[in-house]
Amino acid sequence: MLNLSERGAKMPASPIRKLVPYAEAAKKRGIKVYHLNIGQPDIKTPEIAFEAIKNFEMKTAEYTHSAGIESYRKGLAGYYKNVGIDINYEDIMITTGGSEAIIFTFMTTLNPGDEVIIPEPYYTNYNGFAMQAGIKIVPVTSYIEDGFALPPIADFEKLITPKTKAVLVCNPNNPTGYLYSKEELQQLRDLVIKHNLFLFADEVYREFCYDGHEHFSVLNLDGLEEHAVLFDSVSKRYSECGIRIGALISRNKKIIEAALKYGQARLSPPLFGQIAAEASLQAGEEYFKEVYDEYLERRNYIINAVNKIDGVFAPMPKGSFYAILSLPVESAEDFCVWLLNDFNYEGETVMLAPAQGFYATPGAGKNQARLAYVLKIEDLKRSVKILEEALKVYKNK
Amino acid sequence: MLNLSERGAKMPASPIRKLVPYAEAAKKRGIKVYHLNIGQPDIKTPEIAFEAIKNFEMKTAEYTHSAGIESYRKGLAGYYKNVGIDINYEDIMITTGGSEAIIFTFMTTLNPGDEVIIPEPYYTNYNGFAMQAGIKIVPVTSYIEDGFALPPIADFEKLITPKTKAVLVCNPNNPTGYLYSKEELQQLRDLVIKHNLFLFADEVYREFCYDGHEHFSVLNLDGLEEHAVLFDSVSKRYSECGIRIGALISRNKKIIEAALKYGQARLSPPLFGQIAAEASLQAGEEYFKEVYDEYLERRNYIINAVNKIDGVFAPMPKGSFYAILSLPVESAEDFCVWLLNDFNYEGETVMLAPAQGFYATPGAGKNQARLAYVLKIEDLKRSVKILEEALKVYKNK
Repeated sequence: MLNLSERGAKMPASPIRKLVPYAEAAKKRGIKVYHLNIGQPDIKTPEIAFEAIKNFEMKTAEYTHSAGIESYRKGLAGYYKNVGIDINYEDIMITTGGSEAIIFTFMTTLNPGDEVIIPEPYYTNYNGFAMQAGIKIVPVTSYIEDGFALPPIADFEKLITPKTKAVLVCNPNNPTGYLYSKEELQQLRDLVIKHNLFLFADEVYREFCYDGHEHFSVLNLDGLEEHAVLFDSVSKRYSECGIRIGALISRNKKIIEAALKYGQARLSPPLFGQIAAEASLQAGEEYFKEVYDEYLERRNYIINAVNKIDGVFAPMPKGSFYAILSLPVESAEDFCVWLLNDFNYEGETVMLAPAQGFYATPGAGKNQARLAYVLKIEDLKRSVKILEEALKVYKNK
Repeated sequence: MLNLSERGAKMPASPIRKLVPYAEAAKKRGIKVYHLNIGQPDIKTPEIAFEAIKNFEMKTAEYTHSAGIESYRKGLAGYYKNVGIDINYEDIMITTGGSEAIIFTFMTTLNPGDEVIIPEPYYTNYNGFAMQAGIKIVPVTSYIEDGFALPPIADFEKLITPKTKAVLVCNPNNPTGYLYSKEELQQLRDLVIKHNLFLFADEVYREFCYDGHEHFSVLNLDGLEEHAVLFDSVSKRYSECGIRIGALISRNKKIIEAALKYGQARLSPPLFGQIAAEASLQAGEEYFKEVYDEYLERRNYIINAVNKIDGVFAPMPKGSFYAILSLPVESAEDFCVWLLNDFNYEGETVMLAPAQGFYATPGAGKNQARLAYVLKIEDLKRSVKILEEALKVYKNK
């Protein structure tokens, strides 16, 4: 009998996927399921990206440079300059999705057993990357009543041990939709300087900030040249989830140099994806405006609508395209399973992601669920109606 | 002062890349460099792969299934059936290059500190993957005088400790060009059963076996359902290095299940690459025949030609498109640097990969270099001439 490794046996399944078999069973029974549970937008990829692929002439699909195609890295530096982040293309390493940027950064900056503090609820796949790197995520809880604002710095201080090496924030936040302010980020800057920590920021939702709030990048904090690492991806910016193109960006040359060695081991990021991503840099203002307006309308609609349902509360997100709802149920997970397994409204139901999986603290967020407003308005309207009817039935069960 | 992690600071640069600055400097001086040092073939990708990308209609470049597009997995199972490997598509997980198949397998089967025995010289990037997984590679030396045949099983036995969890072979071999026979693989089977080890095989050069020798897959060894894991890639098969599509294949369902959890954390393998790889399944016999004949001609030419150079010896490789030469020099690395830095023949020179980087045992392979016959015959002819002239000059230095 051959056993898996501990990290193979213990690797957690994504909590979002736990419900997939129920959704599949519902579909088999002929139920239509509205997927508010995942971050796969229905938004169109810029046409220019597909055209670039179609028009690219080559005889051999060769490896690219391990840090990415130079013209793309230069173009990307231009994109950052445009959004107010002044970096050189040599500070950029193109990665296979944002995921790889995270893994490579964990590998180059953290030893096995080291700790990273992350505000919870947080993006669940950080757990998988932590398992892969053998590091420990230490959660600092943010609360729905505060709209998931940055927890007080004193709460971070309490968690710092000799093993603490970094703080990681996702900004704008998945799953909460919270946008950390410049002031909050400055508090984090002071904290990481005081304790000599790295500050990692996952800024893949940069384009999606609402109500006049401006995104402030971790790379624009003074005095963090050595500390700050930015994880980025084109997945959400251009609705290009499948092409697997991200970036690892830091002014700390030692990090980029070491990450590149990991990059050389895996040879190169995907060629076709880089071609599409480079072309997407030309997508232009109209593309973003259209996408932005669409998300804004969806956000405004769905957050207002769910807050009108008896017992439901969702803080208005300032960014990304997610929101956390608190529900008038004891266990949101049980409710989400029930929605798929035992309920339908006129042959339709809704799939949400139970929020508990986004918390590391046992029991936290038990009555909460995450929704992604990645569907068109009419589908969101229908989803809200279904949710409302479902809660009526569930209450009287 | 913020320090990198130990694994960041110690991550080895690929030994092949160590010479890149010298090659770049030579090019700047106007010297033409023939690259026999890397495995980037000049062979054309099947036209059908590019056509599939150009003809694919989509609005949104979405994530694919984390285990890969189902139709591609099914098609790939058909490919394996065709080459005599009877597996189900559910035993296949599509990965981002062969690299990811190796990482995921290490993660799911090995704990940090565990040992994997690999015949040396071996593909240097295994060192990077081992560093990432925190495992230890234990080399068992194969020798140029034996044509790099499998070392005696007694040599493996001597290296087995309580930490030993697996044996890894690359077959056909990069960097040696050796093709392990069915009998050698059966010896490995008996060994891994006796000691309850996993047996990993990197078979990405499967298509390139010469002189009537047939490739025997680790998946066709009896009694290894639980033990055997196959790493594969389309990079060399279809000359699609840049698309980053590989596969992790095992009949051990626990491995596939656990690897899929790592796959879910990184969401999906590259979409465009999968489309190209799936289309390539239709490339047909003529494509392979043409490519095969080209490599065969190159091998026959270059191995015979280098063996005619005074003091040079290269065993005739039975597979892949690499060969190891022993050179009449004390240090092949010094010689390779000199070739780039201090020598040219009529304005041209040759770049080889010093073989020392492929050995883990200090000092082993010091007078050896690897060449990849990935250039067209006329370039190979020119390269041999340059090498011959260079050795004359070097000897009299």
